[in-house]
Order: sequence, then structure tokens, then C-alpha cells
Amino acid sequence: MGTNMLASTQALGFEGPIYPVHPKEEQIRNHKAYRSVLDLPEVPDLAVLVLPTRIVPQIMEECGRKGIKHAIVVSGGFKEMGGEGMHLENELMDIAHKYGIRFLGPNCIGVANLHHKLNTTFLQHEGAAGYIGMASQSGSFVTQMFNYISRYGLGFSTALSVGNEANIDIVDCLEYLGGCPNTRVIALYIEAIRRGRAFVEVARSIVPRKPVVALYVGGSDPGKRASFSHTAAMAGPDHLYEGMFRQCGVIRAESVTELFDFCWALGSLPMPKGSRVVIQTHSGGPGAAAADACGRADLELPTLTNETILKLSSLVPHTSSLNNPVDLTFIKNPLLYFSDIPKVLLEDKNTDILLVYFHTPAQVVRRALEQMGVPEEQVIEQSRKLIDGQCDSVARLMENNDKLLVGYTFRSPEDELVGGLLQRGVPVFPDPNRAARALQALVQYSSIRDKILARKGRGTEEN
Amino acid sequence: MGTNMLASTQALGFEGPIYPVHPKEEQIRNHKAYRSVLDLPEVPDLAVLVLPTRIVPQIMEECGRKGIKHAIVVSGGFKEMGGEGMHLENELMDIAHKYGIRFLGPNCIGVANLHHKLNTTFLQHEGAAGYIGMASQSGSFVTQMFNYISRYGLGFSTALSVGNEANIDIVDCLEYLGGCPNTRVIALYIEAIRRGRAFVEVARSIVPRKPVVALYVGGSDPGKRASFSHTAAMAGPDHLYEGMFRQCGVIRAESVTELFDFCWALGSLPMPKGSRVVIQTHSGGPGAAAADACGRADLELPTLTNETILKLSSLVPHTSSLNNPVDLTFIKNPLLYFSDIPKVLLEDKNTDILLVYFHTPAQVVRRALEQMGVPEEQVIEQSRKLIDGQCDSVARLMENNDKLLVGYTFRSPEDELVGGLLQRGVPVFPDPNRAARALQALVQYSSIRDKILARKGRGTEEN
Repeated sequence: MGTNMLASTQALGFEGPIYPVHPKEEQIRNHKAYRSVLDLPEVPDLAVLVLPTRIVPQIMEECGRKGIKHAIVVSGGFKEMGGEGMHLENELMDIAHKYGIRFLGPNCIGVANLHHKLNTTFLQHEGAAGYIGMASQSGSFVTQMFNYISRYGLGFSTALSVGNEANIDIVDCLEYLGGCPNTRVIALYIEAIRRGRAFVEVARSIVPRKPVVALYVGGSDPGKRASFSHTAAMAGPDHLYEGMFRQCGVIRAESVTELFDFCWALGSLPMPKGSRVVIQTHSGGPGAAAADACGRADLELPTLTNETILKLSSLVPHTSSLNNPVDLTFIKNPLLYFSDIPKVLLEDKNTDILLVYFHTPAQVVRRALEQMGVPEEQVIEQSRKLIDGQCDSVARLMENNDKLLVGYTFRSPEDELVGGLLQRGVPVFPDPNRAARALQALVQYSSIRDKILARKGRGTEEN
Repeated sequence: MGTNMLASTQALGFEGPIYPVHPKEEQIRNHKAYRSVLDLPEVPDLAVLVLPTRIVPQIMEECGRKGIKHAIVVSGGFKEMGGEGMHLENELMDIAHKYGIRFLGPNCIGVANLHHKLNTTFLQHEGAAGYIGMASQSGSFVTQMFNYISRYGLGFSTALSVGNEANIDIVDCLEYLGGCPNTRVIALYIEAIRRGRAFVEVARSIVPRKPVVALYVGGSDPGKRASFSHTAAMAGPDHLYEGMFRQCGVIRAESVTELFDFCWALGSLPMPKGSRVVIQTHSGGPGAAAADACGRADLELPTLTNETILKLSSLVPHTSSLNNPVDLTFIKNPLLYFSDIPKVLLEDKNTDILLVYFHTPAQVVRRALEQMGVPEEQVIEQSRKLIDGQCDSVARLMENNDKLLVGYTFRSPEDELVGGLLQRGVPVFPDPNRAARALQALVQYSSIRDKILARKGRGTEEN
């Protein structure tokens, strides 16, 4: 375990000194090993303890004597096991208190602070560092999400597993992430919050600056029992948490998928001016499905202005429908779909958000090139160039715009077009309903923030 | 377009004769081309028409004179365009009526009858033929789903795009799929049903034998407007369709993702005896999230019998939690996770369904092998063998059991373990909430069917 954790941090290229401490080994993964914390040549900033439960307090004591002020206790076997574990956990807390040590855990998986190239978890990181700050009452939702979120071009800034929360709890982590400059949006996985009032205060102070999304699983009866046997924390009724989240402006997700979908929209898109969505599609069904999804997510589908319709009419085939969804059917010059047409739709004064359907299998592009007479040996390269050009064009539109551009598709994130868009930071959701729900979260956050800022503005005037 | 459609059918290996008809070409994709339908050397079973709108009625007339009885009219520009299109569509209907031709379309994308190696759509099929029969009021939900469903090891039996429904409508297609021996579950994409009463009658006659799942997008206001501009059909209020579906036992999906998730569960799993789920996990968070998802989907999480706990106690580490979720934490012999442990859980008389969390990145297996001293050049092969063995074991458990085994994961369907399970027909949903919703649909269908069969049983006794 310790070796794997060291390997993870090495794999990420951690730049500071690392001192393995081991009772027998001379050398661990190319680092000189020390017999004891007390033998270390300097005082480390952080101690990571992964040891048999019984000796954890003793080593923590040594850390204290050495002058170490921060620790992560990965070892389990404490409060979550009941009995003697409870006593050991109390002992650990007392030692930390005595020396002024702040520590995560015990029974946690550690921290992945990816911008600092620090990954103390036993799983190697995949993908790049990102903007999602995560505080989780399950270590799995740190390590087991590395792969999941990287598939959509997302990454954690810092992800913290809080374990038994003996010293640092999820509220402390929330506070930390609120101040973290690499974190644009905060994700919380919650089984039970012990310090409810502190949570509300901290969240309230963060929300006007940074969105917070929470998945709470202790609300249903089976969820409550599962949470209890997982972390021995008593979960509360769903409506209590619902009320608490509402009170402080925390956006609630209903599943793990939604937790990261909401963070995706909230962390990568500007604030929408309103909830008016225009849908661009070349396929009627996916357009209608998106329209319905928007309707169910309380988003509006305005009609386009006459000016927009006039501008579009020279760009689109006669089979197009210029209602909303704008269904372009078959376009002779496919590049228009990724440039001029979305540009016109973003300019429409009736719209705040452009939701685009992306479905162009590389197979189809290649076949079209073959039929246009492109020599066989050039087809793959030319199709890649074409698709790259389409992705660049969408990314440029997104960057140079105050309004929101969001995609949806049913193709895999490994698809050439979809993958290219994701790489360039364009959010392309794998289902229109997921896109609509994420936009709903964004609109909801924007309106919460506006209300808070308006209240603050009034407060200042009154003073 | 015609060439692409021919290419799709050729790519699938259609075994019957194909006769291209073209005004100028001598040869199309290695087939002799004919000047006119009337010149064909025999009467084809099916005519596929993709022509300029104005000449479609004339060619349909020639088909009739030739004695052709079935046709697909891909061409658009009819009723959906209004004006002259309406007249042309009426003309087409009259001609078909005169000659007794049944036809799909116009303005449709054709049919993919994959067990008969017939794919008249312009997109080539990906993956294998399967058990989902699809009737869709959008052609996109035929062709654009080939890739999507194949990623989960699913496939269509027959997928029909109904277009303007001038002659064959979605009710006819439902009836066809009800009788289709390769179809185990029926998926409907609905924007508006014109023959409501016929729909209810047909669906009612199918449901006791075969589940029907419907996605209706015309219920929200934006969905209604989008449907109208797509297929010119008037959608009705949501509650009306909701009532209609309930009346005939059709299961309603809320998104495209759910449509296929529900078909996946309904088409691949036996009927559950009840709604009691036991969750098996090695990670607390994913276990608690699944428990909460089950709770929200009206599934029960029973406690295990003492017998089960006794049997498990010799298989699991002392850190395990033997509540439900059964959280195994770290297992020394990982094969137990895929064999003995799920076997014991399936045998528990308190449970109907086993929901297993699957998360073992190949990276982790390889590292464990390296640490066990397996020579570097054998690591990849041995890890593949191990993972294959795990997949085989789960597939065997599933096959030899009346109870249901379902998986969930956050890893990609391309992951070695997840991909291996999917290949063997084990449903592994990409999120516990999706698994729970699909199981809810299955439990719902099972109870609908039981009620219908009980009613029929009583009816027989009374006679």
C-alpha cells in the first residue's frame, strides 16, 4: 500500500523531497528509507501514515515530536470498526491536539492535489489537472473518478477524501477549496454532515464567488443505512438536507453522473444572462428530444428574431426548419454547421444559450471525401484535418462569446469530432437530458448568485 | 444517397438479389443497373425509393404495375413541407392503395433488419444484431444509435423509421415487432400517435408476451412544438400519453439513455420474483450511492439471512460490512468477488436481485502481478487471463441462476473488465442510478405482466 502510494506521487512528478520511513527497508522506490520519523534530516510539511492501526498513535506522537504539523492517516480500523477502534481514534485526536497537528482521516484514501503534482492515493492519476475541487466522504469518489472525469476532458484541482473526519472534516475541506485558486467549482459527496451550522456558514460565504454542488446519499432509507455502516455517521432525513442546501445556495445533484455534469457546466461556462436556449441540429429526433429535455428542465425555447431568420436563410437548405430547434437537415458545406450558423444563432438577441447536436462519424466524412475523388491514401489525413477544423471553429466561437455554447451527442467521447471538442474544452454531454439538467443547474446557480449579490448591494447602501 | 444505402446493405452481407434502378448508370457498386422498375427480370419483394420528390409518385406507379407489394420511400419533400408536398403525399397514398402496396415513409430513413442482413439506411451498421426492436418517428434514432447501443453490447433486431406514416404507421410497426421472433423487447420513439385507440389495443396484446418501452417527447411545450415542426404531427398533453401508456402497460422512459437502458434490462434479464436488491461492493461510497439510488427507485434492500452471513464470514476480510450493501473492502483473493461471494448472495432467500459494483482497472491487476514477482513479459497476458476468468465466472453465475445479476461501474465500456462482462451479455450500467432505474422498469413490467396474466387466468376459470 505505502509503496503504491509513493508510486502514485512519483508518477505525477512530485517535485519536493520525499522521505520513506520503514522499519526494515533501506531503499524504497529509489528513495533512501529512514527507520523513524525522528531520524529525518528535516521537518516535512506533510506526513502520510499507512500503518497497522495499533501503532498509528505512537507514530503520530513521533510526528508531533519532530514538529510535523500536517498529516494524512490512511490506516483504517478506528471508529468505523467500533470497540477498541473508538479508543484508538480518541488517542489519535488527543495526540494531534497536543502537538497542534491538523490531519485528514483516519480511514481515508488521501489527497490528490494535481496542480502541485501531489497524489498520495494508491491509484495513479489519469488525465490532466482541472478545475473541480472535490471533498468526499468516500475515497472511491476520488480515485475511482480519475478515469471517469478524464474521459470528458475534466480533472480535479484538488480532491480530498475525509475518511472518519477525526480532525479535518468536510466543512474544513469545503473552506479550503473555497480559497483554492485552481478550483472553479466544488463537488461534495456527502453521507452525513456533522457540523450543520458551520457547513451552512462556510458554504454561504463561498457560493457568491464559486459554485458548490452536492450529492447527498443519506436521504433515502437504504442510503441512510448504507452511510451508517460505511462511515458510522448518522444521516438525516432528505428534506433536512434539501433545506440546508437551499439555505446556503448549494446546488444538489441526484447522482454521481449529475455531480460531475453540473461541475462541468458550472466550471467551464460563463454565467448565462437568462434561460433561453436555441437548439441547433441536423436531425429532427435528437432536436425534438433536446427540446423536450429543455422543457422539463425549466429552460425556455424562444422563437428566433426575423433578423436571424433572414441571416440564416442564405446559409441553409430549403428543407431546414428555422423554428427552435433549428433543424438544418442536410447541409452541403458542413463547415457552416460549425461556424457561420452557430455564430448567427449566438448573435440572436432572444437567446442566452446555444445547444448544438454533434453527430458526424469520421466514417461518413471519409466516405464523402472518397466520393469527392480524394485519393485513398489522403482520405484519413484529410478527414482528420476537416474534423480538426470543425473543432477549432467551435472552440473559437465559444471563446469569443459571452453567451453559452454547449453540445450534446450520443457518440462516444472517443469519437473523433466529440473527442476533439472535449479536448478543446467544449462541453459535449452524452445525452440531451444531461445537457439540459446541467444547464438548469447553471441557470439556478446564476439566479442564486444574483440574488445574493443584490442583497449585498442593498446591504451596503443601507450602511 | 442511393449509392450509400446500397453500400450499407452490401456491407452487412445481404444475401438476396439487389437490382439498382437508375436513369443513366450501367453499373452501380458491382450490380447491373436497370433503366426502369419495369425492366427488372423479376418482381422484387421490396422497393426502396430515393428520388426527387416530384417523380416519386410516377415510380411508385411503375412499382405497382410491376407487381411490387412493399416499398420504402426515403425521399422527403412531402407533407412535412406543406403546400404541394401535401398533394404529392396524397397522390402517393392513392397509388399505393390502388395497387395494394404497403409502404414506409415518405421522409424516412428506412429499415435495418439485422438478422436478415438488410440495412437500407445510408449509415453502415456497427456491432452485432440484437434483441431490441425499434419503431421510431425519427430516423436518427435508428442510424445514430448503431454506435451508441453497440458500445454496451446491445443491438437492434429490426429498427424501423416511420417517417410521415402515410401508409404504415408506428402502430403497424409495433404490431410487426410484437410478432418478430428476434425481438425480445420493443423500443418506441414517439412524437405523436395518430391512432391512439389502435395503439392501446395493439400494445395491450403484446405487453403480456413482450415488454414495450416508450420515449414520448411531445409532452412538454417545447417538445410539442419541436415535434410539430419535425413531423407535422400534433402531439398531445403529457398526462394524456402517460395515461395511455399506463392503460396498456407500456413502460415510459424519460430520456434516450433510459429508453435503451430499460430495453437492456428488460431484454437480457429474467423476470424478478420481487424488488429486493442486495448490493455487493468493495468501495463504501459507490455502495452507499447505489443503496440511495435503489431507495429512490422503490427497490427494497433487505437484510441478509443469518445463514448467508455465516457462509460469507469465512470468505471475507474482518473489515467487511455484511449489511446491505455488502462492502467487502479489500479481498486478498480477488476471484472470490466474481464467484463464491456473489453466489452466496444470489442464494440468500431474502434477495431477488444482485447488484454488483465492478471496478478493477487493468492497471491495478498488472501492478499486483508485478509485485507478486510475475516476469514483466508475462504480466499483460496473465492480467488478461485473470480478467477473462473473472468475466467468465460472472457470466456463468448469471446463466445458471433464476435470480438477476446486474452490474454498475463508473469505468468506460472499453475497460477490460467492463468490456469483458458486456461482451458476455452481463448488463453493467455506467452509473448506479441508471441500474436502479432500469431495475425499477423491470420490476414494474413484471408486476404489470403478473396482473394481466392473473386477470386472464380468472377470465378462463369464469368461462
